[in-house]
Amino acid sequence: MTVSSSSRAPDLDAVVAAHAALRAKRPLVQALTNVVSTNFVANVLLAAGAAPAMVDNPEEAALFAGVADAVLINLGTPTAAQVMSMRLAAEAAQRAGKPWALDPIAAGGLPWRGSVAAELLQFKPAIVRGNASEIIGLAGLGGGGRGVDSSADPAAAVPAAIDLLAHAAAVSASGPVDHAVGMVGGRPVLIKVGGGSEMLTRVTATGCALGALAAAYASVAPDALTGLVAAHAHFAVAAELAEAQAKGPGSFAAAFVDALDAVDEAALRRLARIEPPIPRG
Amino acid sequence: MTVSSSSRAPDLDAVVAAHAALRAKRPLVQALTNVVSTNFVANVLLAAGAAPAMVDNPEEAALFAGVADAVLINLGTPTAAQVMSMRLAAEAAQRAGKPWALDPIAAGGLPWRGSVAAELLQFKPAIVRGNASEIIGLAGLGGGGRGVDSSADPAAAVPAAIDLLAHAAAVSASGPVDHAVGMVGGRPVLIKVGGGSEMLTRVTATGCALGALAAAYASVAPDALTGLVAAHAHFAVAAELAEAQAKGPGSFAAAFVDALDAVDEAALRRLARIEPPIPRG
Amino acid sequence: MTVSSSSRAPDLDAVVAAHAALRAKRPLVQALTNVVSTNFVANVLLAAGAAPAMVDNPEEAALFAGVADAVLINLGTPTAAQVMSMRLAAEAAQRAGKPWALDPIAAGGLPWRGSVAAELLQFKPAIVRGNASEIIGLAGLGGGGRGVDSSADPAAAVPAAIDLLAHAAAVSASGPVDHAVGMVGGRPVLIKVGGGSEMLTRVTATGCALGALAAAYASVAPDALTGLVAAHAHFAVAAELAEAQAKGPGSFAAAFVDALDAVDEAALRRLARIEPPIPRG
Repeated sequence: MTVSSSSRAPDLDAVVAAHAALRAKRPLVQALTNVVSTNFVANVLLAAGAAPAMVDNPEEAALFAGVADAVLINLGTPTAAQVMSMRLAAEAAQRAGKPWALDPIAAGGLPWRGSVAAELLQFKPAIVRGNASEIIGLAGLGGGGRGVDSSADPAAAVPAAIDLLAHAAAVSASGPVDHAVGMVGGRPVLIKVGGGSEMLTRVTATGCALGALAAAYASVAPDALTGLVAAHAHFAVAAELAEAQAKGPGSFAAAFVDALDAVDEAALRRLARIEPPIPRG
Repeated sequence: MTVSSSSRAPDLDAVVAAHAALRAKRPLVQALTNVVSTNFVANVLLAAGAAPAMVDNPEEAALFAGVADAVLINLGTPTAAQVMSMRLAAEAAQRAGKPWALDPIAAGGLPWRGSVAAELLQFKPAIVRGNASEIIGLAGLGGGGRGVDSSADPAAAVPAAIDLLAHAAAVSASGPVDHAVGMVGGRPVLIKVGGGSEMLTRVTATGCALGALAAAYASVAPDALTGLVAAHAHFAVAAELAEAQAKGPGSFAAAFVDALDAVDEAALRRLARIEPPIPRG
Repeated sequence: MTVSSSSRAPDLDAVVAAHAALRAKRPLVQALTNVVSTNFVANVLLAAGAAPAMVDNPEEAALFAGVADAVLINLGTPTAAQVMSMRLAAEAAQRAGKPWALDPIAAGGLPWRGSVAAELLQFKPAIVRGNASEIIGLAGLGGGGRGVDSSADPAAAVPAAIDLLAHAAAVSASGPVDHAVGMVGGRPVLIKVGGGSEMLTRVTATGCALGALAAAYASVAPDALTGLVAAHAHFAVAAELAEAQAKGPGSFAAAFVDALDAVDEAALRRLARIEPPIPRG
């Protein structure tokens, strides 16, 4: 039933190793994302250590998914043509064995994109990342029966996230404490990542950029759950560093990009808050 | 003939009250805007105290207008599909009684978008905001006969703005001193808002962001004119604060977003320059 | 065979004169560019001293090319509709005698956009600007037979750039040292522009913005090669100034926009590194 299972839950050492691999390999991420986020997603990927390419037309999307190391599909502002590209890119990524990440923005609340999101799950994303409501909403679309919950608490989304492991290797709900789930030793486990900054909620497209970074990490980490946890940890540490420099959301955005670049092994070891895995099956 | 009429012209107290309502209610603004402005518009709304959502495809635009608290329609880079969405969103907003703002970029100079703008007026925007040439150009499209004037002086746009009160509850022309008009006690009045910064003209999409903020304010203020004047005042005060921090247009943009967040009642009372209303009818 | 030929190769004095002309005339640049770059391109143009307008729909693209002073066509994220607009704008610019610049992003690597780029060459761009691989790739599409080279060294792209002078008045490959070629006295010459900052490679859309600035300069300089060299020099000097202010790629981006505004004759004379022309024919 599950897409993949790791032998070992990720910990700080695994995150540090994934970070070193990101910097060494500089993976190319094809981002099919919303119009609000394109520039910020590209700058976050560049600063963190990956390379972005926003090839999202139907003429080139499948071809490029074979060239890229990972693919991000973000449902923020879908158009009919972009949805066609998403199908093509997801299918091509699956065929080529490239990890792809799904960011199901508002999929539970808007039926048209909801049907797109449900359809895309057939191409087995390595990662699904959203806020709690989006994860609950997406799981509900699959017939899991939980429906949409307006709660913003990531803990409330854990059962829905585990349901989604039928389609994706790793799933997370972002929040004050991020909650990521995946299969370890054949059973679902939950890993919480703390830290970060409330300022991330005051700048647009930060969640979108986190999804893109998770796709990048998934292409260099030993498994999707490790990649997802590494992306959350890198993001949270950078946000904490940036908050100390910022006077408001405008200066925070620039400082955050600076900090994504500055995060190194020492910063991860000092600031990353990755909790021990909690078995959930 | 007019869409709405207030009993009282907005003053500083009304602006302070609207600002408090914005922060308390955090209205959701659906922005159908140009590709240059999406990210900045979203960050300005977040910083000022509203919530953005850029749902602008024909499949979802009408549905979302029923969910949002206000709608922005900006004609900066229209496509055929986005224009279809604009019609659907404006109509849905009108039907649901949600205020929407029209930013008629270049409507007087480019016939295709001019016809779109003229058509959208039938859905009775709460607010029309543009620069002087755009307001004069839009009024000319309606057969008012004033035609396009290349003048950039907002004072020259006041007669055109008053003409547009046949379609919209409040209309403003931005400039060194912003000129806003609306109906009070059944007669048109003009309110000037001073302050601001010349740097606003050196950063792209500031006008677009002001239009979005005006839509947000219209949803929390007692009437559209109060909302429009509050948006101009909040913007101008933030620009003045930001200019003191900036070394150039790049640092101004970040400082301006910081300042939109920082503007509070004390800053409004100290810096907002809202002139007494001038009867114009 | 060549589109144009200058009597004199540009030097520092010519660049200073072009910069003065840019500030005096503030040319209007129509940018048909990718979704990642729109906001940054507009802000770079505004800061450097030009005016941006992103009119890129098929309904208005040709009309607006007659109004604008210069046109940028950037192939970063083409859609079918935007490609139609590109053809219309390039043709209209050629007909009206307005300079236009082609930025052939990934044209050598992706067949669909490659065919678009090859087709657009018939409308005789004043300028082609890319990185070394893109210039080599684009020349290869024209049947020049050199094919795609993965080298990132601009020096390796000079023969391909000279081939492209069959279609364009001036061609450059960006890199640590930018290499620009054009016809002077009926023979190809190479001009190298040094300086700049490695940080330009850590911020998305800097190359796109350079292409837009080259289009702006081409409309105010005596010939396309002078405009192209002036754009490279203005960009490089601003990048060097910005690097001294930056803590990372996020703060660099803002400081770079500040510096584009701050660059004046004194800064150009102190920091621009324009090498003497090298005959290549």
